[in-house]
Amino acid sequence: MTLLTNDELNRARKVAHRVSARPVEPDDFASLDDVVARALWSGLGEPGDRVVGMICDALGPMAALDALAERPTSRELARLVAASAPDDDDDALAEMLDEALQRWLPRLQASDAVGHLERAHRIGASLVVPSHPLWPEGLSRLGAHSPGALWVRGNVGVLETLDKSVSIVGARASTGYGEHVTMDVVTSLVDRGFSIVSGAAYGIDGMAHRAALSSEGNTIAVLAGGIDRLYPSGHDALLRRIIESGLVVTELPCGFAPTKWRFLQRNRLIAALSCATVVVEAGWRSGSLNTAHHALDMDIPVGSMPGPVTSASSAGTHRLLRETPAICVTNASEVAELITGHADALVVPDLDHPLATRVLDALSRTRARNLDEIVALSGLTPLQLMSVIGLLELQGAVRQNATGWLRA
Amino acid sequence: MTLLTNDELNRARKVAHRVSARPVEPDDFASLDDVVARALWSGLGEPGDRVVGMICDALGPMAALDALAERPTSRELARLVAASAPDDDDDALAEMLDEALQRWLPRLQASDAVGHLERAHRIGASLVVPSHPLWPEGLSRLGAHSPGALWVRGNVGVLETLDKSVSIVGARASTGYGEHVTMDVVTSLVDRGFSIVSGAAYGIDGMAHRAALSSEGNTIAVLAGGIDRLYPSGHDALLRRIIESGLVVTELPCGFAPTKWRFLQRNRLIAALSCATVVVEAGWRSGSLNTAHHALDMDIPVGSMPGPVTSASSAGTHRLLRETPAICVTNASEVAELITGHADALVVPDLDHPLATRVLDALSRTRARNLDEIVALSGLTPLQLMSVIGLLELQGAVRQNATGWLRA
Repeated sequence: MTLLTNDELNRARKVAHRVSARPVEPDDFASLDDVVARALWSGLGEPGDRVVGMICDALGPMAALDALAERPTSRELARLVAASAPDDDDDALAEMLDEALQRWLPRLQASDAVGHLERAHRIGASLVVPSHPLWPEGLSRLGAHSPGALWVRGNVGVLETLDKSVSIVGARASTGYGEHVTMDVVTSLVDRGFSIVSGAAYGIDGMAHRAALSSEGNTIAVLAGGIDRLYPSGHDALLRRIIESGLVVTELPCGFAPTKWRFLQRNRLIAALSCATVVVEAGWRSGSLNTAHHALDMDIPVGSMPGPVTSASSAGTHRLLRETPAICVTNASEVAELITGHADALVVPDLDHPLATRVLDALSRTRARNLDEIVALSGLTPLQLMSVIGLLELQGAVRQNATGWLRA
Repeated sequence: MTLLTNDELNRARKVAHRVSARPVEPDDFASLDDVVARALWSGLGEPGDRVVGMICDALGPMAALDALAERPTSRELARLVAASAPDDDDDALAEMLDEALQRWLPRLQASDAVGHLERAHRIGASLVVPSHPLWPEGLSRLGAHSPGALWVRGNVGVLETLDKSVSIVGARASTGYGEHVTMDVVTSLVDRGFSIVSGAAYGIDGMAHRAALSSEGNTIAVLAGGIDRLYPSGHDALLRRIIESGLVVTELPCGFAPTKWRFLQRNRLIAALSCATVVVEAGWRSGSLNTAHHALDMDIPVGSMPGPVTSASSAGTHRLLRETPAICVTNASEVAELITGHADALVVPDLDHPLATRVLDALSRTRARNLDEIVALSGLTPLQLMSVIGLLELQGAVRQNATGWLRA
């Protein structure tokens, strides 16, 4: 038994042909059915539903729908899935599927396949599926929580720039300070060739998109509801500008409202789509901390921008610095460093550095010492010594003669 | 041969009797000679001269001086020291002493023993030596770089409060913001019973002392020159107020000028005297970063207070957060936490926390699961699970029935 009748399927394939972000031949039924099935699945499970990912991976999206059409018991479904993934524990699987069926079956309507696609087509949105050449690699970090497809509006080519991107997120209740530094950092990141990912919210998010647009950079807004709902409504004009030159993305079909859960799951997409996440201003319980936590969970570097300790809008960024491995960043260069990952190399910034002091302590002004002697006296490793003494020489603090090193 | 003639020694013992911070019987020559010899040594080696510590430890301060009186070769001196510390490498020792003798002998004057003590006596200063019951334990963290004695003016009893103390240091070029938060944090730390150690410099240091005094807290100022020189001169009145109720400390005899080196070494004392060091505002190359590095070297916790990224006076505190293990602190409670050392315990601040999400994901609304099952499904350790689920229950997100746990 199949979920869609032949008529339904033919109609859905026709719309899918138009809505697929990747050009598909009208007779490439496998690809079209993948688009059709993923369009329907995108409204069946809530964002982040890992059982959706599991069953689609195991059976394929369309076959999984057809299996549901049989109204199977969870044990029957488990047997099907287990045949494709024999390592899983059958009981746990059945239990997980039991719950999933309770979530999915009430929502399962064959007509949604063509419905979601038609609504998207009407507003010029497309569906990007994992077989698309520009499917963002970063989403793989979400594992089973990765979305099965992305609804997009705008310039799909912008997805290509995600391999050099930063998500900039922050408080809706931003201050002049936060907006100023957002503008500053984003402009400078765009100059360095970074794309800017954010959530189109009021405050820092909006400023991040605006700053990217105004310096003609690439920007991607990730929404928590259907892509026909340009939310928040006060950012309708901003989102339309992003659609013109950047990209608006969501994992939910048209008509779906942004709920609290979907906002939290949207945050995982913001994190997964970018190479680093930076929180500019955040209240103590700001949603942007959730984005930062998602990033940290995926080992995506997180930068946190400090502010006055007297500002409630910086309490969350300071909290990140205290409670998580987020790194303090104060400008675009430090944000870029999150990604280029300059190792925590030995840095001897000045003569006050303890290692420099120890080297200087081990040197005489009158009698030159060789490196072995200095290693012994200073207690540094030979490698440390070479770095430090080289820098001290550059600074004119030590000098070398034929037999060794002296204090200058 | 002895360095001091009998007459010189008798005169010096008399002044030492008056200047010693610890009451000493006039016929307790061993104790008096310790004070006399340490007074003289305090002007012989520069602060932090580890060879002074080594030779005084090996021979005793007075015997070490007497040995110098012989104008020994470094090898002769090495033989003497090695007899007390036979593990040391003779050649390295001789070489180290060779340089030390070049530093010390030109300065060695028997008359300084009584001279330093008399000058101190004239201004009401005392000498605290390591046998004093209030000798600060923290100095032992300096190892061989520990001072041999401390010249003090004020209320010596304040030394007793150092076991609950914070050093607050920062930029001379402070801003209104930095001064405001210094006042705030210090007042609140004093309320919690902390003593405040600082360096009496303009800017943050001065504000730290002032705030401590104005809330009737204990405060200790550590100077880089002789204790007769209330430096900087603009803080003469402030330092006199500290002498009235707190304590001013230095390791250098009266008349000694504060040099760049002595400032840097003074910073190690500020760090070693306190249980934690907090930098409030600091330029990129602020001397307070040197204090922080000293503290970090000694495993003393360091707090760094962020500020606007647009403020040059906060560049140094952000640098500490980026380049060192310094911890972001934003208020007195977080400063106190540096010391009480609340371990980085498992904190589940809200339902958005990844661990909370994983627990909730592992729970059903309909079928209760026991802890073993939840551990297996969530991938948390049993200990993590117990903490998280307890907090989630408090928040009403989960509930327990006879057979296990459910989502609420």
